[in-house]
Amino acid sequence: MGKNRLEAFSDGVIAIIITIMVLELKVPHGEGLGTLVPLIPVFLSYVLSYVYLGIYWNNHHHMLHVCRKVTGPVLWANLHLLFWLSLVPFVTGWVGENHFAAVPSALYGFVFLMAAIAYWILQQLLIAAQGPDSLLKRAVGSDWKGKLSPALYAVAIPVAFLWPWVSLSLYVVVALIWLIPDRRIEKVLRDAET
Amino acid sequence: MGKNRLEAFSDGVIAIIITIMVLELKVPHGEGLGTLVPLIPVFLSYVLSYVYLGIYWNNHHHMLHVCRKVTGPVLWANLHLLFWLSLVPFVTGWVGENHFAAVPSALYGFVFLMAAIAYWILQQLLIAAQGPDSLLKRAVGSDWKGKLSPALYAVAIPVAFLWPWVSLSLYVVVALIWLIPDRRIEKVLRDAET
Amino acid sequence: MGKNRLEAFSDGVIAIIITIMVLELKVPHGEGLGTLVPLIPVFLSYVLSYVYLGIYWNNHHHMLHVCRKVTGPVLWANLHLLFWLSLVPFVTGWVGENHFAAVPSALYGFVFLMAAIAYWILQQLLIAAQGPDSLLKRAVGSDWKGKLSPALYAVAIPVAFLWPWVSLSLYVVVALIWLIPDRRIEKVLRDAET
Amino acid sequence: MGKNRLEAFSDGVIAIIITIMVLELKVPHGEGLGTLVPLIPVFLSYVLSYVYLGIYWNNHHHMLHVCRKVTGPVLWANLHLLFWLSLVPFVTGWVGENHFAAVPSALYGFVFLMAAIAYWILQQLLIAAQGPDSLLKRAVGSDWKGKLSPALYAVAIPVAFLWPWVSLSLYVVVALIWLIPDRRIEKVLRDAET
Repeated sequence: MGKNRLEAFSDGVIAIIITIMVLELKVPHGEGLGTLVPLIPVFLSYVLSYVYLGIYWNNHHHMLHVCRKVTGPVLWANLHLLFWLSLVPFVTGWVGENHFAAVPSALYGFVFLMAAIAYWILQQLLIAAQGPDSLLKRAVGSDWKGKLSPALYAVAIPVAFLWPWVSLSLYVVVALIWLIPDRRIEKVLRDAET
Repeated sequence: MGKNRLEAFSDGVIAIIITIMVLELKVPHGEGLGTLVPLIPVFLSYVLSYVYLGIYWNNHHHMLHVCRKVTGPVLWANLHLLFWLSLVPFVTGWVGENHFAAVPSALYGFVFLMAAIAYWILQQLLIAAQGPDSLLKRAVGSDWKGKLSPALYAVAIPVAFLWPWVSLSLYVVVALIWLIPDRRIEKVLRDAET
Repeated sequence: MGKNRLEAFSDGVIAIIITIMVLELKVPHGEGLGTLVPLIPVFLSYVLSYVYLGIYWNNHHHMLHVCRKVTGPVLWANLHLLFWLSLVPFVTGWVGENHFAAVPSALYGFVFLMAAIAYWILQQLLIAAQGPDSLLKRAVGSDWKGKLSPALYAVAIPVAFLWPWVSLSLYVVVALIWLIPDRRIEKVLRDAET
Repeated sequence: MGKNRLEAFSDGVIAIIITIMVLELKVPHGEGLGTLVPLIPVFLSYVLSYVYLGIYWNNHHHMLHVCRKVTGPVLWANLHLLFWLSLVPFVTGWVGENHFAAVPSALYGFVFLMAAIAYWILQQLLIAAQGPDSLLKRAVGSDWKGKLSPALYAVAIPVAFLWPWVSLSLYVVVALIWLIPDRRIEKVLRDAET
C-alpha cells in the first residue's frame, strides 16, 4: 500500500484549508487605511492558524518521509486528523471576528486539542505499521513536544473563559515550541546512513 | 495510459469537495455558545458527508492500487463519479439548513445513490480493462457492500417523504457498513505475493 | 525540464475550477421541491461546463501523455489556457442565472473560443518541442475536431444575440463531438509499440 | 529529504490562490453588456495578479528543478513565500473594487514586495543547501531581475499615494520584465550536460 496518494491527498486538503481561511479576510468596501483596522484581529488569527497549519504540514511531511508502509487504519487516522484541521477556517474566522472573545477562544483551543490527539493516534498507528525498531520510532523518541502541546491546550481551554488573552498567549507559545527547529528525524536519517 | 494523473485529479477534486463543504458552516455573528446551536444540524450533516467522502476516497485508493491499466472510458467513468460527488456540498448544506426535512433528505440519498451507481460502473470498466483473472476482480469478489448500499439508498429515498429521520438512519447505517474494515484488497495483495 | 509539475499544476487548477463552479448552485432557503426549480438553469449550465472541463482535462491528459519535453513557452501557453478556463465558473454562473440570455450566452461562447485557441497554441508549441516525426504530431493528425470547434463557437457567438437557444445547442454539439471516443493517441501508442 | 512534496504542496496552494481570486469576479445580476462594465477594473486586477502568480509558479518550478536537497529551513521559507502569495486574492479584490485607489494600490505593492523578499530568502537557503558550485548558484548568477523587482516595488508603494496609476504602471513593468524569457536555468542545464 503506497504512501504517495496519502501524502498527495493530505497536501491537497491542507493547501485548500490554508487558502480558504483567507476568504474570511473579506475585501472592505472603503478605500482608506481605516477600513483595514477592523480586519486586524481577523488577520492576526489568520497568521496564527497559518503557522499552525504550516507546522502540521511540516511534521506530517517529516513523519511520512521515514515511513515505508501505510495500512488501512492509517488512512482513516489521517482522515480523522484532516477532519479537525478542516474546522480550522471556521474557528479562525469566529475567533477573529469576535476579537478573541471567551467562547470562540476556547473552541479554537478545542479544535487544535482534537487535532493534536488525532495526530498522536496517526503517529502511533504509523509506528505500529513500520514494525519494531523502525526509523520513525527512533525519530519520535520521547516526543516531549507532542505531549506538552495537548497539555497546554487543555489548560488554555478553561482559561479562555476567564482571561481569553492568556489562553491566546498559550496558543502562541505552542506554535513557538514547534517552530524551534526539530532535528530528530533529520538526525535519525543521517545516523541510518552511516 | 498511466493511472497517476487519474489518481491525482481525483484526489484533488475530493480534497476540494471536502474542504468546500465546510464553507456551509458559516461563522456566526455572536460570540456566545448559543450562537453555535443553530449550526448543530449543519455540523452533523457535514460529519456524515465527510465520512462518506472519506469512504469514497479510501475505496477509490484501494481499487486503483490493484489496477495496472486505465482506458479512455475509465477516465470518463471517473469524471462521472466525481460529478455526483461534486453535488455533495450542495445537498449537505440543504439537508443541514433544513434539519433533515423530507425533500432535502430524499435528494441527499439520491445524490449518493447516483454516486454508488457511478462507482459501480467505474469498477466494472476497470475490471474489464485489467483483463481476465485480474487482482481487482478477485479483490472485488461478490461485492455485497457495493450491492447493499444502493438498495438501502433506494429504500431511504421514498422513506424520506414519510419519516425523514428513518432515512437519515439508513444513511448512517450505509456509512457504518463501509467503515467496518474491508480487507479484501489487502488480502488479495498478500495472497498474490505468496 | 520535466512535465510532471505541469500536469500536477493543471490538474489542480482544473479540479478547483470544477469544484468552485458548484458554489454557484446556492443552497435554497426553503425545504420544498419547488425551491429547486429556479436552480434548474444554473444546474444545466453547470452540467454543460462540467462536461467541457472534463473534455479539456481528458485531452490535456492524452496530449501530455505522448510528450517527452516541455519548454519555457509551453509553461506559459499552459498558463494561458488555464486563464481562460478559470473564467468558466464566472460565465457559467452568469448564463445560468439569466436562463441563457443573449449576452451571457455570447460571452460563454467567447470564453470557450479563447480556450480552444489557447489549447491549439499549446498543442503547436508541444509539437514543436517534441521534434520532427513525434508521436504527438502523428496522434494529432488532421485534428478536425480542433478545427471545427472554434468555427462552431465563432458561429455561436453572433447567433446568441438573435437566438440564444440555437447558440446553446451549438455548444452542446461541440461537447458531443468531443465525447465521441477519440482513439488517435491510443492508436498511435499501440502502433509505436509494434 | 525529498523535494516532491514541497513542489506538490506549492503547486496546490498557488493553483487554489489563482482560482479563488476569480471568486472576486462576482456574477452580475443583470443580463446586459452594461452590467459587465463595473467589473472591468476587477477583471484587470485579476489579469495582473494572474500573470504575477504565473511568474511565481514558473520561477519556483525552474528553481526547484535544479535543486537536489531540501532542508527544514527551506520548507519554512517556502511556507513564508506562500503566506504572502495567499494575501494576493485579498489585495487584488481590494484594488479592483476601488479602481486602483491610493491605499489599495500601495498595499498591493507591499504584498508583492514581501513576496519578492520571501522568494529571495528561499533562493538563498536553497543555494546554501545545494553546497558550493551548485547548478542553482550558477543559474541564478547576478540575478538582476530579482534585485530590480523589489526596488521597483519600493518606489511604487509611496508613489501610489500621489499617482496611483504610475504605481500601477510600475507593477505592469515588473511583470513584463519577468515575462521576457529567462534562459539562465535552461542554459546552465544544457552546459551541465555537455
